[in-house]
Amino acid sequence: MKSHPSRTDIPRGFTFAATACGLKKTGLDLALLASNGAVTAAAVFTTNRVQAAPVRLSREHLQKSHHKIRSVIVNSGNANCCTGPQGIAASRATAADLSRSLGCSPDEILVCSTGVIGVPLRVKKILRAIPQLAQSRSSDAAAFEEFTRAIMTTDTRPKWAAAKCSIGGTQIRILGCAKGSGMIEPNMATMLGFLATDAAISPVLLSRALRGGVARTFNAITVDGDTSTNDTVTLLASGKSGAKKITSASGDYRKFCAALENVCRSLALAIVEDGEGSQRVIEIEVRGAVSDLAADKIARTIANSPLVKTAFAGADPNWGRILAATGRSGVPFEPSNVDILLAGICVCRRGREHPFNERVAHRKMLAKYVPVVVNLRAGRGAARVWTCDFTAEYVRINASYRT
Amino acid sequence: MKSHPSRTDIPRGFTFAATACGLKKTGLDLALLASNGAVTAAAVFTTNRVQAAPVRLSREHLQKSHHKIRSVIVNSGNANCCTGPQGIAASRATAADLSRSLGCSPDEILVCSTGVIGVPLRVKKILRAIPQLAQSRSSDAAAFEEFTRAIMTTDTRPKWAAAKCSIGGTQIRILGCAKGSGMIEPNMATMLGFLATDAAISPVLLSRALRGGVARTFNAITVDGDTSTNDTVTLLASGKSGAKKITSASGDYRKFCAALENVCRSLALAIVEDGEGSQRVIEIEVRGAVSDLAADKIARTIANSPLVKTAFAGADPNWGRILAATGRSGVPFEPSNVDILLAGICVCRRGREHPFNERVAHRKMLAKYVPVVVNLRAGRGAARVWTCDFTAEYVRINASYRT
Repeated sequence: MKSHPSRTDIPRGFTFAATACGLKKTGLDLALLASNGAVTAAAVFTTNRVQAAPVRLSREHLQKSHHKIRSVIVNSGNANCCTGPQGIAASRATAADLSRSLGCSPDEILVCSTGVIGVPLRVKKILRAIPQLAQSRSSDAAAFEEFTRAIMTTDTRPKWAAAKCSIGGTQIRILGCAKGSGMIEPNMATMLGFLATDAAISPVLLSRALRGGVARTFNAITVDGDTSTNDTVTLLASGKSGAKKITSASGDYRKFCAALENVCRSLALAIVEDGEGSQRVIEIEVRGAVSDLAADKIARTIANSPLVKTAFAGADPNWGRILAATGRSGVPFEPSNVDILLAGICVCRRGREHPFNERVAHRKMLAKYVPVVVNLRAGRGAARVWTCDFTAEYVRINASYRT
Repeated sequence: MKSHPSRTDIPRGFTFAATACGLKKTGLDLALLASNGAVTAAAVFTTNRVQAAPVRLSREHLQKSHHKIRSVIVNSGNANCCTGPQGIAASRATAADLSRSLGCSPDEILVCSTGVIGVPLRVKKILRAIPQLAQSRSSDAAAFEEFTRAIMTTDTRPKWAAAKCSIGGTQIRILGCAKGSGMIEPNMATMLGFLATDAAISPVLLSRALRGGVARTFNAITVDGDTSTNDTVTLLASGKSGAKKITSASGDYRKFCAALENVCRSLALAIVEDGEGSQRVIEIEVRGAVSDLAADKIARTIANSPLVKTAFAGADPNWGRILAATGRSGVPFEPSNVDILLAGICVCRRGREHPFNERVAHRKMLAKYVPVVVNLRAGRGAARVWTCDFTAEYVRINASYRT
């Protein structure tokens, strides 16, 4: 990832703005992404049964506007979750005020919030800031960079990614940013992702592309298995690149999907890398399962095992824990067929220890990125999940959050 | 729990022995529980797909002997898991040699192992020790105490419990011991439980009583969601108390079940208390669910949430994490109906923060035993699960196990 976005990374037809409205003690905490007119939009939301007010409102607006959206507004510092009827009223007021400033319908606004749960949102601070925020919109790379900073909470750095591809000979751009130190702190660390493209694409295909991309990236990372009440990823397509419209699942569509998935993957890995207390990213690949679903279930069980994750904190080639986690995943398999590769080294063959040099394995596991392959030798099902190691620092951060 | 068992705690018809055969660097590592003749037996085993050789052999023996068992032999220091055909041969040799010493069929022997995974068991050390071990059997309380020490691995203290009840006017005894620092270290910390009673009871009712008791005790504790490859609980009934035989689901049967469950609960809680790095036991009770199953699913999701467990390490009344874990359990419920009590204090009412004194709540959460109640107000389903807090010490223990 380049350290700073440049003018050519910004998709045509979008502007950005950010300000400090006072929800956080210091720093930017209100961000705006807007298109020049209503554009095609898609979004995915948290599957948690407890859903914050902005999630419920954005879902409603996406439906009412038939997936035509003008702007996304995001505040950090307060999640506006478990806040009752006032919470919903606060999100509605935000959308209403912004729609007046932009001259559009309130239904064309998506609202996102991230921060503490259960504390009433001081929405007046947001409403007071909106007119100036809307006026200061810009298509400069610097405005986008401010946007990436305004959405941060426990994040130690902004996260953004860009891709380009050619549709019928014309270049289109995809730009995205995200916040989250993993899905690891419902009080502060919701995962939010904001994507914009100047490709022209039908609403149905845009939704399908986003769902597919998110499934293999944002939804394939896990820091501690905790899913936030506010998780949201939005994608707006302005159609301003000049490239022909994608209206069928053609080769152009597949090129667009591949570029979108690259952006999503970069952002998802940046979140895992920034996991609280994390020292390294662990890629868990399960192969040879009877189905992709079975492989995914096993990969997630391994990725969420505290024993596996603490072993990685110590760079310990403890394959017994990986095999034991596989065994309790609920997926049937034959243990005596299983091979395990740790950082490229075969440590378990056919369910038994395969002689390996512990010191070499330990050294290889000290890397920033450690791949694990579990091969069940039972079929063609496969899945890949990313997680981070589980350190004493994670416990320190999360044990002392409020008291 | 009394600190030492006494002569009157020992059920009639059983003897115990323990020795240091050399599998551990120091200390007792081989233990024997025997009855005077073949007696009625029941057992429950790990549900992990990866099952150690002694688990597979004990299952086979229980079936072949029609639940008539003479003795249980246990080694610590090596789990004999992922050890291939030699592993099964080692467990078979152990049963065969012990059966010769006791003068019974090998099918009447149950074998248990706990310790490191994937390392061949040096079974000769066990076989060499068996004749002397069998000879040294005693019904003294001191012999039982040695048994409780010989099965320990990462445990910091032995765990035992006893109960008595009257069946038709005659007293029967139930005695049990367990090892495990929770199901938290597949390499070293299998959960094993050994129970003996002098009640007379039919094999079918004995199995049913054990299953019921274990479900609400041993299977209702979780330290980190990791289930070992070797978990086993056995129960032998000698019938030597002189009380009449329990042959139907009568009042006597229910009395027996209650006493058995008390012993199992004491042992299960002792395991949680001894969880690696644990400072306190957390009791999670879910009430008002649509079914017991739904309540259990929610209780386990909360109990295994690293965010909830780290909050308890800091005695932080962070109810938002409890509600968020409830929301991702996969069970449908209405968030705006939920009440949460933390250490007896109502912190969330109808899905929103209920004003409470943070300092008082923090002080109450510093206790050794902290109850949590989540009331969904949707039905009569309920469940209770015990876990411990998640400390930096846990990470230190588990990150540095091998390297």
